[in-house]
Amino acid sequence: MGYVNLDLARNFMVRVKHDADLIQFTSELAAKNGIKVATFTAIGALKRAKLAFYDQEKQEYHEMELDAPYEIASCVGNISMKNGSPFVHAHAVLADKEGNTRAGHLLEGIVFATELHLQELRGAKLERKNDKVTGLSLWDMTNPKSKL
Amino acid sequence: MGYVNLDLARNFMVRVKHDADLIQFTSELAAKNGIKVATFTAIGALKRAKLAFYDQEKQEYHEMELDAPYEIASCVGNISMKNGSPFVHAHAVLADKEGNTRAGHLLEGIVFATELHLQELRGAKLERKNDKVTGLSLWDMTNPKSKL
Amino acid sequence: MGYVNLDLARNFMVRVKHDADLIQFTSELAAKNGIKVATFTAIGALKRAKLAFYDQEKQEYHEMELDAPYEIASCVGNISMKNGSPFVHAHAVLADKEGNTRAGHLLEGIVFATELHLQELRGAKLERKNDKVTGLSLWDMTNPKSKL
Repeated sequence: MGYVNLDLARNFMVRVKHDADLIQFTSELAAKNGIKVATFTAIGALKRAKLAFYDQEKQEYHEMELDAPYEIASCVGNISMKNGSPFVHAHAVLADKEGNTRAGHLLEGIVFATELHLQELRGAKLERKNDKVTGLSLWDMTNPKSKL
Repeated sequence: MGYVNLDLARNFMVRVKHDADLIQFTSELAAKNGIKVATFTAIGALKRAKLAFYDQEKQEYHEMELDAPYEIASCVGNISMKNGSPFVHAHAVLADKEGNTRAGHLLEGIVFATELHLQELRGAKLERKNDKVTGLSLWDMTNPKSKL
Repeated sequence: MGYVNLDLARNFMVRVKHDADLIQFTSELAAKNGIKVATFTAIGALKRAKLAFYDQEKQEYHEMELDAPYEIASCVGNISMKNGSPFVHAHAVLADKEGNTRAGHLLEGIVFATELHLQELRGAKLERKNDKVTGLSLWDMTNPKSKL
């Protein structure tokens, strides 16, 4: 555990491209603009999506294909560095025509229309490293630039 | 597609009025305070609500009346300009007494108690215009002040 | 009703401690760092959780124990002062292995892995006081430092 203090940097209001994958689009936005750390939220609608649940015992992702249109009722995520590239981590709550929901880790979301608000953060490193306890790639807080 | 970079401006922590409609209240807050662009989140509880799902094929909203008390488990939204006035776009996840959810585009939410955090953004135009592909009113990124 | 305008202060990207309770952890983070007002979001996974729904008629919380692993599909919250100490108010949407959700007021969430983004706010008081209409502890907007 631990934390880093960062400085607020550029603020992006983004109209995500129709038919793009929200995760890949956000990764490319980060790479093209030199964004290394950020937080974001998104609302809109997807044509289809792929969610995941992490099985905490087996330490593996259980994937779910949602092959239908959904509202993005909520999407909260962040960007940090992993193996030298900006890595997008996002969770989403999706709603169908009846307002019923499916939610989890957002692996893929094909955009019908999506509004992304991204707040860039600067001034400290935030990198993912493998964590033995969970089997996940988590923020490394042993870095000397981190304030523990 | 495209994006605008904006500057962080005023930050509002708001106690929304009991019995007000969250959408109308937020619109009025924006109009009274000269807010043209913002992002916001809200948590709290509603007495009743109206959600919508956008039918991507028929290009029309399917509305759902929820005539019962709900927790606002999540509400994420933004403000931008539409036809010369600040326009509120919000999505919400609502939870009933058993913790079961209904979610979607929030058309109306009558407030029992709601805490709204609004971050104003300034420095660039962000306006909605009709989009032929989706039938929705989306952010216009052809404006010369937008950075594409 | 009413609102306060605050200034953006420190920004924390936090790796929450494995096995900690997310609410208690965030309260302690605030107390240790002198955080009096903040907003936050979190994503990750919980080992188990306790949610609540506020019964608006009886004016009492209805609690729900969720004794299983869940993804935090969304968590939105804030910190303000209550009886002289920083008080954490958070709502969450949790997703199970099938992507099905339970949501509400987050009373307790035992962390498997959680990423917390906290934005400190300064420059005005934000305190909770009992509200007779709702029976809840809401932001006091009668304080002369509040801008009504």
